[in-house]
Amino acid sequence: MTTDTVSTRARLHDPAVRSFASDNYSGVHPEVLAALAAANEGHQVSYGEDVYTARLQEKLVELFGRPVEVFPVFNGTGANVTALQSLLPRWGAVVCAQTAHINCDENGAPERVGGMKLLAVPAPDGKLTPELIDREAWGFGDEHRAQPLAVSITQTTELGTCYTPAEVKAICDHAHSLGMKVHMDGARLANAAAFLDVPVREFTADAGVDILSFGGTKNGIMFGEAVVALNPEAADGLIYLRKMNMQLASKMRFISAQLLALLEDGLWLKSAGHANAMAARLRAAVDAIPGVQPTQATESNGIFAVLPPGVADRLRRRFRFYDWNEAAREVRWMCSFDTTEEDIDSFVAAIREEVGA
Amino acid sequence: MTTDTVSTRARLHDPAVRSFASDNYSGVHPEVLAALAAANEGHQVSYGEDVYTARLQEKLVELFGRPVEVFPVFNGTGANVTALQSLLPRWGAVVCAQTAHINCDENGAPERVGGMKLLAVPAPDGKLTPELIDREAWGFGDEHRAQPLAVSITQTTELGTCYTPAEVKAICDHAHSLGMKVHMDGARLANAAAFLDVPVREFTADAGVDILSFGGTKNGIMFGEAVVALNPEAADGLIYLRKMNMQLASKMRFISAQLLALLEDGLWLKSAGHANAMAARLRAAVDAIPGVQPTQATESNGIFAVLPPGVADRLRRRFRFYDWNEAAREVRWMCSFDTTEEDIDSFVAAIREEVGA
Amino acid sequence: MTTDTVSTRARLHDPAVRSFASDNYSGVHPEVLAALAAANEGHQVSYGEDVYTARLQEKLVELFGRPVEVFPVFNGTGANVTALQSLLPRWGAVVCAQTAHINCDENGAPERVGGMKLLAVPAPDGKLTPELIDREAWGFGDEHRAQPLAVSITQTTELGTCYTPAEVKAICDHAHSLGMKVHMDGARLANAAAFLDVPVREFTADAGVDILSFGGTKNGIMFGEAVVALNPEAADGLIYLRKMNMQLASKMRFISAQLLALLEDGLWLKSAGHANAMAARLRAAVDAIPGVQPTQATESNGIFAVLPPGVADRLRRRFRFYDWNEAAREVRWMCSFDTTEEDIDSFVAAIREEVGA
Amino acid sequence: MTTDTVSTRARLHDPAVRSFASDNYSGVHPEVLAALAAANEGHQVSYGEDVYTARLQEKLVELFGRPVEVFPVFNGTGANVTALQSLLPRWGAVVCAQTAHINCDENGAPERVGGMKLLAVPAPDGKLTPELIDREAWGFGDEHRAQPLAVSITQTTELGTCYTPAEVKAICDHAHSLGMKVHMDGARLANAAAFLDVPVREFTADAGVDILSFGGTKNGIMFGEAVVALNPEAADGLIYLRKMNMQLASKMRFISAQLLALLEDGLWLKSAGHANAMAARLRAAVDAIPGVQPTQATESNGIFAVLPPGVADRLRRRFRFYDWNEAAREVRWMCSFDTTEEDIDSFVAAIREEVGA
Repeated sequence: MTTDTVSTRARLHDPAVRSFASDNYSGVHPEVLAALAAANEGHQVSYGEDVYTARLQEKLVELFGRPVEVFPVFNGTGANVTALQSLLPRWGAVVCAQTAHINCDENGAPERVGGMKLLAVPAPDGKLTPELIDREAWGFGDEHRAQPLAVSITQTTELGTCYTPAEVKAICDHAHSLGMKVHMDGARLANAAAFLDVPVREFTADAGVDILSFGGTKNGIMFGEAVVALNPEAADGLIYLRKMNMQLASKMRFISAQLLALLEDGLWLKSAGHANAMAARLRAAVDAIPGVQPTQATESNGIFAVLPPGVADRLRRRFRFYDWNEAAREVRWMCSFDTTEEDIDSFVAAIREEVGA
Repeated sequence: MTTDTVSTRARLHDPAVRSFASDNYSGVHPEVLAALAAANEGHQVSYGEDVYTARLQEKLVELFGRPVEVFPVFNGTGANVTALQSLLPRWGAVVCAQTAHINCDENGAPERVGGMKLLAVPAPDGKLTPELIDREAWGFGDEHRAQPLAVSITQTTELGTCYTPAEVKAICDHAHSLGMKVHMDGARLANAAAFLDVPVREFTADAGVDILSFGGTKNGIMFGEAVVALNPEAADGLIYLRKMNMQLASKMRFISAQLLALLEDGLWLKSAGHANAMAARLRAAVDAIPGVQPTQATESNGIFAVLPPGVADRLRRRFRFYDWNEAAREVRWMCSFDTTEEDIDSFVAAIREEVGA
Repeated sequence: MTTDTVSTRARLHDPAVRSFASDNYSGVHPEVLAALAAANEGHQVSYGEDVYTARLQEKLVELFGRPVEVFPVFNGTGANVTALQSLLPRWGAVVCAQTAHINCDENGAPERVGGMKLLAVPAPDGKLTPELIDREAWGFGDEHRAQPLAVSITQTTELGTCYTPAEVKAICDHAHSLGMKVHMDGARLANAAAFLDVPVREFTADAGVDILSFGGTKNGIMFGEAVVALNPEAADGLIYLRKMNMQLASKMRFISAQLLALLEDGLWLKSAGHANAMAARLRAAVDAIPGVQPTQATESNGIFAVLPPGVADRLRRRFRFYDWNEAAREVRWMCSFDTTEEDIDSFVAAIREEVGA
Repeated sequence: MTTDTVSTRARLHDPAVRSFASDNYSGVHPEVLAALAAANEGHQVSYGEDVYTARLQEKLVELFGRPVEVFPVFNGTGANVTALQSLLPRWGAVVCAQTAHINCDENGAPERVGGMKLLAVPAPDGKLTPELIDREAWGFGDEHRAQPLAVSITQTTELGTCYTPAEVKAICDHAHSLGMKVHMDGARLANAAAFLDVPVREFTADAGVDILSFGGTKNGIMFGEAVVALNPEAADGLIYLRKMNMQLASKMRFISAQLLALLEDGLWLKSAGHANAMAARLRAAVDAIPGVQPTQATESNGIFAVLPPGVADRLRRRFRFYDWNEAAREVRWMCSFDTTEEDIDSFVAAIREEVGA
């Protein structure tokens, strides 16, 4: 079957269309697709006893410089809930930012499936601090209060901001001093590594993070994330939790092969760095457009901005993107591994037109 | 990137190895891989508002001949739990065979995540009947008893047997007469359709099944199943349940494109029919081997047999497969879309040798 | 056995000691104890088919002036979780005040047992309003967001404040206009009725509340509350939910008899009115003590106040009570059905001494 | 208020009526009622920090001869689920008899609230054995299988039979050798102690039981049971689990005082022994009635028997009791602490009449 045949027969969409809606609107990086093909054919033991998953385990031990344990799963919500459950007894609660994905975008999966209570703290830039954690980290030993035994931070945050290694370390040190464990939702971990330009271990394992949701889907793979127990002693029962949370892929080789493709030759940093660069290009341009008011630092691949009345709707006729806070006229624009400079420039031109700048 | 490059760089396994362990040890059919490539590139709305998912919805409406509703998910456990929850109030229970996958192989996900009680009935051939259902379908209105409000059957069963359309209809009629709804776990639905050689709707929607877990992974796709509400009025809240059960794929186009590839040109029946045929070939051969005692009718792609003492372990040095009931020396041999006649013949020769026949 | 024998043999505590810690530190009103004795002896059908429960049902139909349905349960947390579950599908969320008992004092039972998400809104006086509800009542139909399908208000609130009938009605009208249902946590319902001096139906059923946790324990009974479906059509499956939530008392006659004792001859209002009056007496006294700063309106049986540094600890050597917000030096003083004027006066004298006023 | 006043005003039932339906149709033993009165008045710290609960803790340490930990709860279902959760990780399963109360009569609370899977084994006399346990105690380490990490036995069983100390010890030894923990549902523990005529510790703590649901309600108290961690190291987080399971009584002194009343002067054994004796009297009588076929050994306060067609319904017009297995015409007759010899004799006479013996 040739590529021509494929596209004639099965392609239902226009591959030229791009948007600024989400980094999960994009497809799959060609090298990831190639890796999927390479992992195909023949029989491999299912449920993770395959050679790709074994190799992924080795790769992540290298990456984090310690005997981490890796558990590939289907998606980010699955990774987050499974990771948090492994840290917590049944009576545990999780301190997180009010804007956290686990709090806002998972339809209560942490509560309903995970059986945990979230203690959400307002954090205007999406970042927790030891002081913010203390607002909910109390009542230890009081049976009436869900016990705050874990902290969850998102890197980069849902607002596009990025914790420095020192900030992560301060949070981990504080949490550990209170007997709490630390989870990092790394749906956009690569964007943070690219932005900070330091080895990923510096703001994760070395900083004291106990468990990580290692993201892949938002960085150019088809599906798949991994729970990585950076401190395996802090996490209990991950093999069972993954299965009962319906996150155990039978043909796991195809998740592991994709994550391996990301890690080989630095593809993950290259893709994330590109997405970040596209966001920076967009940010630089909109900073110069009167009436468009960015609301957050641009430290990854997303831009948040308040637009003049009516602009968002008009602009959306040409490029798809989401409102972030409709009442405040704040929108979110996301760049992806496949966003091009031309995409940015066309979008900027469109913004200029609609704003009337 | 050429295929050569790919295999040099990233292939970690021997694509020539096959086994009889499970139909999920196999990889992905080449046409499915091509469909994944065709669905790639450009941006598509995430979470199911893409054109592939829309097309899948149309295809399944055609297939079942009524306005069914389709909800792609990641895996079979996810499909089963989500489907059953949509049928049941919080106090519901599910009558199933003791051998059902939901009862034996999902680490309690139906109970733990789904919050349902399973009322499991011994069924020697894996098939429920109205009479078997009645053993647990009682106590309606008694608050002390988990309310048996759904029946779950597996087609083909975990024991490789197959319900006829009339058998399914009898179950559905009986269940409905009691106010119960019917779920079918169709992880191997295509094998049933191929075995029965009737349109799939005859033993599903037309027979009265309310909701279906439509399998794909065991029939040559990479990942993905679908919850199909055959009777949408019987199912409530599927979009929410899928999300909170952590089964909502962001890049859903890649699940839908695979399922479409199965349905295009009858690939799903062709693949399943081939797997069935290989099992039939194996069955015919072992029927002639003294000392090997098949325990179930071979009505799909699996064979169950009791082996003489020691044979399983010796044979396993050459071909991977699983014990089914170790105490009884019963083993399970599964065929797949990629099992060849040569595989069967080599395996039969090996059995003969080890049995000493 | 005479009372003397009893007290000699079994009384392990000093019945003269009283405190200001909580209205559940007190015991049982003598008329309630008498009612328990009267309900004793002979056999009564268990699990609620007894004559006392039937009579309670009649009494509450009278009280609320409509065909309400009553489900006695063990305690307030059980009542709240059961009531809320009956209003919500599995994907539901509850808008409540951040200070709500369900959010702060139930160790996550609503999330863990009830499977619901709480959307908590800061409310300085413990009272929700339509505007406050709107902060979380959005995202209807968005599968990523736990669906805000119920509002829960507490009457009187955890901060001792009281909703007027008009305020409750405004909340109910607003909630209903959004397709949301309304639960009232009435752990201190009688204190509200006594404070407002209107029939209880005016700020519950008549105002549009769909379901009520009808409190008893804090108003002089031994144990027991009731879920009262004021609008039975809004609540589903209460008999099953009560059982699976482990709130079904076998000897239910003894809960119902106590609640009946409260309702007979207005004992519930008399007791609650007395507790309110004692709080008012205390409030009047402390208003005149320099350095003691009440923080909330006193509209029921509790007083919240900020004390000068060191006073709380010294005072606590003489009378037991709790910190409310330790960092702010805010304490809570609760009065009960058995608090006496002498108790108040002694306590006031002690406060004066410790404050040095 | 005199007793006359009470009965005139509040007694709605005929205290002379008794039945054979359940030991929870009966009321409260007079000494228990006296103990409730003695525990009344004055203020006691709520939620278990009262002197009655402290004294109960001491009493149970004495009774079991080791540092057990006691957690009073509201009812038996609450005790069972809380106890089992404390033994199990989130992925745990419980091996129990198919007839176990946790499996049949708790509307799925162990699964729905406790999040555990029950692995129920047919046991014709209601008693597990090491061999029966082995039918489900396998698959350790297999992530697909709910991990069988606890055994639950009921003493006396739901079928009125009684484990000997040696039988309990054999189960515990076997379970422990497999890494499983043991729970005993002791809803009728006192009936077992009375029947076996040995100290209760011999068939509980000394035999190796890790945790116990200590029953009270079926033995003449108003409400209340206790989770007793016989081996506190085997149980985790009971204070939190009790609260989140909505089993934490605020006025806990009234549960503890009742349980103390049972334990003082051997009331619990006296009452249970009486109920057993009444059952023995009934058994002796029906053994002599042709056509009435007892189906189980009578080793506590219940009798199970098959009646000739039509007899159950005619008999039920005079005495209330339940069908056990309607299809088999098997009924259950329960005696209680307040069953009299006259009750038995009248009932026997009625049976004779209806049978036509």
